[in-house]
Amino acid sequence: MEINFTPVGTVYSPFKTLEEMPIQPVGAEGIKGTVSIKPRYLDGLADLDGFSHIYLIYHFHQAGAAKLQVTPFLDDQPRGIFATRAPRRPNAIGLSVVKLNDIIGNLLQIENVDILNGTPLLDIKPYVPEFDRFEADRIGWLSKVIGLTKNKRSDSRFR
Amino acid sequence: MEINFTPVGTVYSPFKTLEEMPIQPVGAEGIKGTVSIKPRYLDGLADLDGFSHIYLIYHFHQAGAAKLQVTPFLDDQPRGIFATRAPRRPNAIGLSVVKLNDIIGNLLQIENVDILNGTPLLDIKPYVPEFDRFEADRIGWLSKVIGLTKNKRSDSRFR
Repeated sequence: MEINFTPVGTVYSPFKTLEEMPIQPVGAEGIKGTVSIKPRYLDGLADLDGFSHIYLIYHFHQAGAAKLQVTPFLDDQPRGIFATRAPRRPNAIGLSVVKLNDIIGNLLQIENVDILNGTPLLDIKPYVPEFDRFEADRIGWLSKVIGLTKNKRSDSRFR
Repeated sequence: MEINFTPVGTVYSPFKTLEEMPIQPVGAEGIKGTVSIKPRYLDGLADLDGFSHIYLIYHFHQAGAAKLQVTPFLDDQPRGIFATRAPRRPNAIGLSVVKLNDIIGNLLQIENVDILNGTPLLDIKPYVPEFDRFEADRIGWLSKVIGLTKNKRSDSRFR
């Protein structure tokens, strides 16, 4: 069974290559970008400007073939791909929460962008703290290295 | 441009129809379900059991044709689809954070499930409070009705 999606738009950012990108929005504070929505989806943007933060769901279009185990940027040993945010996933779907600063026509001005320039966008959802903030008390292998996230940058390993 | 995904597994839950489902995990407290991962992706589950909460990204397989404006369960007027979590989206992608109670072989025991039985699963990512909790200060049209989420149930409007 195959599921087919068509991008609803494109994410533009200062990151032209996979190297030296922040690896999460928490490491991309202040980095600005733009989302361009295809004109035919314009009506779907109504009311979105009321939200300060949004989810972007996108295609890791530059990721290499899927691997079931990868050594994440923050670690030195292989981990199951589903226990990481690495891009070389069976379905190369990326998820980021960004600040939404403004919407002008079909252009969204966004901030805290950890997304590669030219990334095909699949969906936008409003971020709602009452829905989306969970008291997760275990973060597995990340617990040892979580403090490194903010300054860690990507390299070419998932190309 | 089309992007093709193949489900990595299936979500099983007590919800056999779209009617009477909780509309967010916050309304599904204690509801248990199972994720069955296809055997060929088993190695990708390594290390996942260290995480108390996970994102499930899935296909709203029972959603009707996309609509750019919908009247959400919590509201009485149409809103842009991207300003809602409603299923009839241009790309029918769903996102839930659930509790991960256990992994036995290729079966994940999950809790706080607001997902229809038989839903095709596209991806799993670890939920990491340090990455995923944002101080969103504006939630648009939802600000008036947010308190209703927990007890609100779905109906057939997005079938």
